[in-house]
Order: sequence, then C-alpha cells, then structure tokens
Amino acid sequence: MSMNWSELEKVATSWVNEAGQKIKKTLAGPIDIETKSNPDDLVTEVDRSIEEFFYEKIQTTYPEHYFLGEEGIASEEPLLEGTVWIIDPIDGTMNFIHQKQNFAISVAVYHNKVGMIGIIYDVMRDELFHAVRGDGAYLNNVELPPVKERPLHESVIGLNARWLVEEKNQYRNPLKALVRDVRSIRSYGSAALEMAYVASDRLDGYLSVQLSPWDYAAGIVILNEVGCVASNFQGDPLSLTEPGTLFASKPILHKEIISVYIGEEY
Amino acid sequence: MSMNWSELEKVATSWVNEAGQKIKKTLAGPIDIETKSNPDDLVTEVDRSIEEFFYEKIQTTYPEHYFLGEEGIASEEPLLEGTVWIIDPIDGTMNFIHQKQNFAISVAVYHNKVGMIGIIYDVMRDELFHAVRGDGAYLNNVELPPVKERPLHESVIGLNARWLVEEKNQYRNPLKALVRDVRSIRSYGSAALEMAYVASDRLDGYLSVQLSPWDYAAGIVILNEVGCVASNFQGDPLSLTEPGTLFASKPILHKEIISVYIGEEY
Repeated sequence: MSMNWSELEKVATSWVNEAGQKIKKTLAGPIDIETKSNPDDLVTEVDRSIEEFFYEKIQTTYPEHYFLGEEGIASEEPLLEGTVWIIDPIDGTMNFIHQKQNFAISVAVYHNKVGMIGIIYDVMRDELFHAVRGDGAYLNNVELPPVKERPLHESVIGLNARWLVEEKNQYRNPLKALVRDVRSIRSYGSAALEMAYVASDRLDGYLSVQLSPWDYAAGIVILNEVGCVASNFQGDPLSLTEPGTLFASKPILHKEIISVYIGEEY
Repeated sequence: MSMNWSELEKVATSWVNEAGQKIKKTLAGPIDIETKSNPDDLVTEVDRSIEEFFYEKIQTTYPEHYFLGEEGIASEEPLLEGTVWIIDPIDGTMNFIHQKQNFAISVAVYHNKVGMIGIIYDVMRDELFHAVRGDGAYLNNVELPPVKERPLHESVIGLNARWLVEEKNQYRNPLKALVRDVRSIRSYGSAALEMAYVASDRLDGYLSVQLSPWDYAAGIVILNEVGCVASNFQGDPLSLTEPGTLFASKPILHKEIISVYIGEEY
C-alpha cells in the first residue's frame, strides 16, 4: 500500500494546530511542573498530555503506524521499518516554563528510515515550518528558498554556551575555536526551532553535543529540502534510535566546520 | 519649565512607531550594508536614516533638548545636565542583516542624568516595552508585574558565548563559572531586547562585557520600574558617557552574582 505523503502532512498539520490550540489554552492557567533526572530537562503536564493526544490520534487513524516519543508512550520496540511517527510534544521546555514562548511542537514521519514529513510549529509566534520530502520546505504558506552560503567568519551560529564550559564535553576545545572564528553566536533554547532557523536562513548553522532523535527528526526533513545538511559531528547520518551530537548547516559551511573544527575528537 | 513626561512619552512612542514603519518598508527592498571597524558592529543605511529621523524630529519639536546617538549625529558635547535623548536606532544590527527580525529601536530620555522615559521596540514582533519613571513598565498595553526571583541554579541568563572564549576578556573565568552554575544560557543578539526580556521575566539576568550608553539607556528605565537592577559588573551605576560592562537582573540574583562571580576582576 502506497501512502500519499502530502495528504498525510495535511492530517499531521491539522493535529499540530489542534495541539497548539490546547497548549495556548493551558498557558492561560497555572502550570504543573515536574523535574526529570536531568535538571535541564523539565517536563510539564502539558508535555505529556500533548504526546498522549498525538499517540491516540495516530493509533485511531493509522493503527499500522509506529510511534516514537520523548515521554515514554511508545510502541513497544520502535520499529524503524514501516511508517514511524517521531514526536517531541514540546521542544524547548525550559523556554515553555520560563517564557511561555519560544517552544515548538516537532512532528516527523519516517518511512523505512527515510524522513518523509517534517513539521516544526512555534506555537506562540504561529510559525509553522513544514516539508514533505521532495516537495520543498515552507514557513506557513511561503516556500523557503534554497539557502545562500556565507563565509565562516561572517556566519551566525546557534550554540549553547554550556558546551564551552563542561569539562566532560570532549568537543569543548574545537567548539571554543569555532566560537572565536565565526561572526556571532546565538542561543534560543530549542533545537527544533534552531534547525528551522538554519533552514530559513536566520542562522547559518546549529550545533549541539547531545540530542535525541525526537529533537531533530523533523528538522532533518525540513533542512534537506532547502539544501542544508544535518549530521553528527563526524558528518555521519543521524541515528533515529540513539542520542548523539548534531550539526545542521549550509552545505559548504558544514564541510568546513567538520574538517577544521569538530570532525575529530580532541 | 517643568516637563510632562507622560506626554513626552506619547510623542516619543509615536515617533518610534513611525520609525518602525519606515524600517518595515525598507526591509521589503534591498539593503545597503557597510562595515564599521568592529566586524561585530555592522551598520546599515537604515541605521543612519532612522537616527537622522529622530534627530530632526527632536531638533524641530524640542530645540532645547540634547541628543546622544550611536551614529555620530550628536549635539556637540553631549551635555548630561538638561534633557537628553539617548537613541540606538537599530540595536541588534547583526540580527537585522541576517534575520530581518529580532532587532529593536531603543529610545531613552534622561533629565539631569535621571532616566525619565525608556522605550524598546521590537519592530518585527510589534512588541513595545516602555516606561515612564514612577509610572510602571508596560509591554504594549499590559503593565509588567514586579519580577519574581528564582534561585541562581534555576535561572536562565542572557550572555553571548564569545565572552567565554576571548582571551583578553578579564571576566572570562568568572563568567565560565556562572555558566556552569545557572540552569541555562540564552543569547538573542540585542542588548536592548535582552534587558527588556529581564524586565518581562523571560530571562532572569543579562550580562555583557562591553556596551555603550545608547545600548542600555532605555533598558535601565524599564528595568527600574519592575524592581530590577542594572549596573556595571562591580554593582556601580552605569555611565551615560563611557562604554563598559552591563549586568541587569532581578535584585537578589544581582547581589549574589556580583558577590560570588563578577564583582572582582580575576
């Protein structure tokens, strides 16, 4: 049975919009906050209820699809053959709690390990970044043009400053060298949004030393459509089952930063 | 002659809105970019034309007022007695050029060295942060509540990662220690907006090693109205004539970060 991916994207987008409405409604009231083991990784009731919302929608509408999510409501063993939804209900939980904005819903659909649909929705700014493999990437209804390269020393890069100070981060020194050489650094606190910003030319690249598949699964699909590359720090394809490093950027810059800075561990 | 500061704020706000419209219009067309001596400090034609716009408005309407701006159209010696307008026509020029968003117009009015009016306008998001001394601070038409403190280890701090890698920055080590101890770091690339984000509780604090009076003059006025403190890294009042360090935050956090991290040079 062959799937119409554009049709499926419409369904997924309607669920994302519905989820966005739920979140906006909840943000009017008080928020229950719960701490996970990692203090940087707060999770809220909203996070779990939105994941449940998607899980139920998918189970009801596409019972043959698999589901991979952050909050533990997952199909038994996430099978990467077949059609798999990979969802982060709220990417940027810290922003969600502190700012009540600058967080995103990230929804990806992979088929036999190939990214077919990517949706990143900045709920409070109402910016929907979305793509179907081969059909281009869009911000709301406007198609994103292929990205233009800038030289490294004129580039603006997304990178969290904490990666420069953590002793146990083996990429600390190459990242410091990179920060010295580029034009400027930004940090927005949402991997999904920072990947979307690379795709829409607000950033030239984005790096993180530790992310999980649900953080970047949708971003990969969107980035591919505008000619960008997303890989780990060695330039290898990203894992859909294991956490690891992420480097998303324009393609020439991608090669340069991997060969000069981060391709080898120091 | 006594000035009605609320009336003056209305006039200033109307000019800010007019300037915002001009900028939006220009952003539809091509942009002329010119490099200043500091590669991080690009200036555009827009920057200069907006400064000129304010200068002419002020000269015509309030010929007895002084003017201090970034781009060199300044009243001869900026006299700090009397009424002085301190203006940054585009704060966050790098964002302006790369992102066409996330920049702000910053307008302050000081009287005998006391900040009376502060206006920070995020042009593309249409967020106007504004305050008149003693009358509270507002985001658009909503009054900002007094800020709530968080413990340091739960704080989200605005800080550009480049301050952690520049060998000549004498605050490098204390800032690294701070980055290790707080919850998370953000960097938005506009000092004016990051001060406004402290005032509106999106950030708990913001630090920069090198800023000029026009970068922070409006922010000080807004921050004071919600109980926040803006000082240099030693905790002393900020200069209106010389560049220097800036640390804006909630008051308890302000004391702690100065006494434990940045109060002494290392």
